[in-house]
Amino acid sequence: MKLSGLSLLEPLSDSNTSVFSAVNPANGEALEPQFHSASLRDVDTAARLAEDAFQSYGKLPGKQKAILLRQIASGMDAVTEELIARAHLETGLPPKRLKVETTRTTNQLRMFAQFVEEGSWVSAKIDVGDPSRLPMPKPDIRSMVRPLGPVAVFGASNFPFAYSVAGGDTASALAGGNPVIVKAHPSHPGTSELVGQVISQCLRDCNLPAGVFSLLFDAGNEIGTALVQHPLVKAVGFTGSQSGGKALMHLAASRPEPIPCFAEMGSSNPVFITPQALATRSENIATGLFESFTSSVGQMCTKPGIVFLPNGRGKQAFIEKLQNLVSQTPAAPMLNANICSRFGNATAERKQQKKVHLLAEAKPAPAENGFYAVPVLYEVDAENWLQSPELAQEVFGPTTLLVSYSDTAQLLEIAQNLEGHLTAALHATEDDLAAMEQLMSVLERKAGRVIVNGFPTGVEVCHAMVHGGPFPATSDGRSTSVGSQAIYRFTRPVCYQAFPQQSLPMELRDENPLGILRLVNGEYTRSRIGATD
Amino acid sequence: MKLSGLSLLEPLSDSNTSVFSAVNPANGEALEPQFHSASLRDVDTAARLAEDAFQSYGKLPGKQKAILLRQIASGMDAVTEELIARAHLETGLPPKRLKVETTRTTNQLRMFAQFVEEGSWVSAKIDVGDPSRLPMPKPDIRSMVRPLGPVAVFGASNFPFAYSVAGGDTASALAGGNPVIVKAHPSHPGTSELVGQVISQCLRDCNLPAGVFSLLFDAGNEIGTALVQHPLVKAVGFTGSQSGGKALMHLAASRPEPIPCFAEMGSSNPVFITPQALATRSENIATGLFESFTSSVGQMCTKPGIVFLPNGRGKQAFIEKLQNLVSQTPAAPMLNANICSRFGNATAERKQQKKVHLLAEAKPAPAENGFYAVPVLYEVDAENWLQSPELAQEVFGPTTLLVSYSDTAQLLEIAQNLEGHLTAALHATEDDLAAMEQLMSVLERKAGRVIVNGFPTGVEVCHAMVHGGPFPATSDGRSTSVGSQAIYRFTRPVCYQAFPQQSLPMELRDENPLGILRLVNGEYTRSRIGATD
Repeated sequence: MKLSGLSLLEPLSDSNTSVFSAVNPANGEALEPQFHSASLRDVDTAARLAEDAFQSYGKLPGKQKAILLRQIASGMDAVTEELIARAHLETGLPPKRLKVETTRTTNQLRMFAQFVEEGSWVSAKIDVGDPSRLPMPKPDIRSMVRPLGPVAVFGASNFPFAYSVAGGDTASALAGGNPVIVKAHPSHPGTSELVGQVISQCLRDCNLPAGVFSLLFDAGNEIGTALVQHPLVKAVGFTGSQSGGKALMHLAASRPEPIPCFAEMGSSNPVFITPQALATRSENIATGLFESFTSSVGQMCTKPGIVFLPNGRGKQAFIEKLQNLVSQTPAAPMLNANICSRFGNATAERKQQKKVHLLAEAKPAPAENGFYAVPVLYEVDAENWLQSPELAQEVFGPTTLLVSYSDTAQLLEIAQNLEGHLTAALHATEDDLAAMEQLMSVLERKAGRVIVNGFPTGVEVCHAMVHGGPFPATSDGRSTSVGSQAIYRFTRPVCYQAFPQQSLPMELRDENPLGILRLVNGEYTRSRIGATD
Repeated sequence: MKLSGLSLLEPLSDSNTSVFSAVNPANGEALEPQFHSASLRDVDTAARLAEDAFQSYGKLPGKQKAILLRQIASGMDAVTEELIARAHLETGLPPKRLKVETTRTTNQLRMFAQFVEEGSWVSAKIDVGDPSRLPMPKPDIRSMVRPLGPVAVFGASNFPFAYSVAGGDTASALAGGNPVIVKAHPSHPGTSELVGQVISQCLRDCNLPAGVFSLLFDAGNEIGTALVQHPLVKAVGFTGSQSGGKALMHLAASRPEPIPCFAEMGSSNPVFITPQALATRSENIATGLFESFTSSVGQMCTKPGIVFLPNGRGKQAFIEKLQNLVSQTPAAPMLNANICSRFGNATAERKQQKKVHLLAEAKPAPAENGFYAVPVLYEVDAENWLQSPELAQEVFGPTTLLVSYSDTAQLLEIAQNLEGHLTAALHATEDDLAAMEQLMSVLERKAGRVIVNGFPTGVEVCHAMVHGGPFPATSDGRSTSVGSQAIYRFTRPVCYQAFPQQSLPMELRDENPLGILRLVNGEYTRSRIGATD
């Protein structure tokens, strides 16, 4: 595949827009080719093409959407090495990690293919009418979810595949029947264009309108803003920073027609360790924590950034193990210059706080032009942590903060003071887990996913996954951006009253031609509706 | 039951808050007793009590929530006559209509009781872990929906029972496990207090904390504002005007922690009539339309306020039939002075528009002190309607606007120009329904419920109902405020990773002790998870 540096649109981008380049974070050098920022006219063109495409794509049977999704997955498989090579240059992430991510991305596309092919996902509900009911006839009421329309998706910096052009937002939106307009993340435009080319080719192969998918570049915020404000755009999917997410939430809510905005804004993912767990498994937990907070140079939305650690047996061994691991870790490039300098500023700020102790820091990176970082480990006691709300904020990068607590009452106070997080984890023995019931009740309200004896990084793509959580972890704690349920962000229920059979969608007809699970008169069944109708 | 005029709170409302009275719309006279507006301290007390109550109520098994909901229904049944008598005095609505509404309200409570008692509503999903999976072990992931916490509910003026103190918002929030704080509508405080007393008594009978339900009065907006802004309140349910709903949306979105706000703001519910339908059934459709737009003095969110009528055969008979019905209709009291004067202003404004023709108006009401209105019927042609966006706005009260169109192309243009509505209805013959496919596709995007050969008023309470619709009909077109699915407005999914069996909620345990339907490894089943786990 050959990179053009142009958005996947006809007509092509206005030639007078600005250009930008990806930068290799390992050496700070600009990568070829240059990319053209989209114009406002491109945004409008993409939105109109998406709206036109929606007329047919929104009604496509699940089986046909599944074919498209599987083709995209196969298309990516066919060029995996090329994708990984470019992504490695643009993100500095190691090829091994990128390989895992491409597999996850194609698995995700295939999971949605299977989900919509099977068909029950539409939540078909039928309450059969009864003209003889007294005092009033009972109307025939049937409903199912339908797609919203064109969805704007923002690629994330830290997952060039899984949360970008063909990532979870795109896969779930397409699976639901929504055309997608992706605003590529400017850190990895080449990777974005390559994946975009795969999707566009698949649309041609499937004889689907090109407007089902558009890709727009921009080094700044103008195009993203125009996209969210465009009247034909009906929803937004975003993974990134709190500042970016909140800006999009505000844009979406202040449109003349407000639209749903699903922003996953990361969090510091608290980890709680009980005294018994620390006393019996300190080295083991330390090793797991180290791997989790330094994985991908700490650039994960689910990175554990705060660890509540009891004073007492095992603490010293735990800290020493971590210090040992941290100090031996070589510097590694972060995703881009901004992220690297923000990480440097945030860690420097923590070092200057009187109550925060620096426990370990790896050797600084050699003087290079790349955007390198080393892991940093801090400690603070719980009293001071409770008094310093800024210490609860996410620091994006390879650092974590150990918070020493004295007793369970304090742990509860800490938990009650937490904002919303994507995850919360508890390390406990079988014995003291039962005693932690009250803590678990609190954590359940503070996080989308609660984990026992594990770490939050590594989000399994499956039906039961909830990658969400109360604000400010996400804009809407009632949603997930990973797993099959992510599809419902981009759907709405539509009710059909007193429709003749042939005017109903297949999913709602008496004979149940798709054989899907439906709620019929309050009972779940795959049966057809009998002669009594 | 005896009315106290005090919010259902201990400590009782500060004695220095303002007082107000309900007014009988049939004669303009104040009704006894006076009601005390709540204080800001009351809001805080109610929120704290609700939060405390949530600790236990949020975890209550479905069977126990069902007992509470059924007791509330029975409690209302036991005092139906008293409730109807007071509501009649406060709203001017006829006892017969109020009887239907109380039945609907208690049926609704019982429907939610059955829904949560059966238990499958929690959407349990289980992806069983596999420690031997390569390249990485598969974690055990389970999820289900959980309640959000204290919910603020705003009573509606036009349904003193079904959308008020024990109405759909309260019933669905309580069913989901959320404590409720109701801000009573100031037009019917006595009815509100009586229903509130029933609920409070049921909480005592069920040994549940009083904080599960609070009722606050206020003649103005201060208390409602404070309630939506209170940090312990986690969601808002509202049925009312666009201005009120938009104000609450803004308040909810601009909190430090934004919360979901479900505002049902009404709409003008367009009705489309095809030439064949008008040619063959004009009188029939006219009679149905008349009943629908004048029912409850036109004070329904689903009142058909715009009717698209073809020029041609049947039109004259249709209009004459309507004129005849309208002119014979006696004046009837509207809900309150504000609603009545707004209706008067809106109809007067339409009369003055050059392009709008007054087709019929009943005799004006005799000079009385009550808030009386008579039905008014207008006509405009489609060209002028398309040029006057204000003619698409809802006028709350017994009026509708006939819009004469010339051909199907124009009908499509009209439909495409519509904003979001709660409903859209199409009257067509079997023959021309098939030809209306394109129109139906448009209407499906513009409304939450599409109706064939029927009228929008009379919202059936059932599983498949969608009483929602794109903005501005509601704040969130992805929701419904009527039917069993309304419960999901006040829930969020929570994911439990690697939990030992005894720490999991009952709904997610291997043995499936509640026998609910679950999605296990991608298959819907009521079976327990086998020995392989």
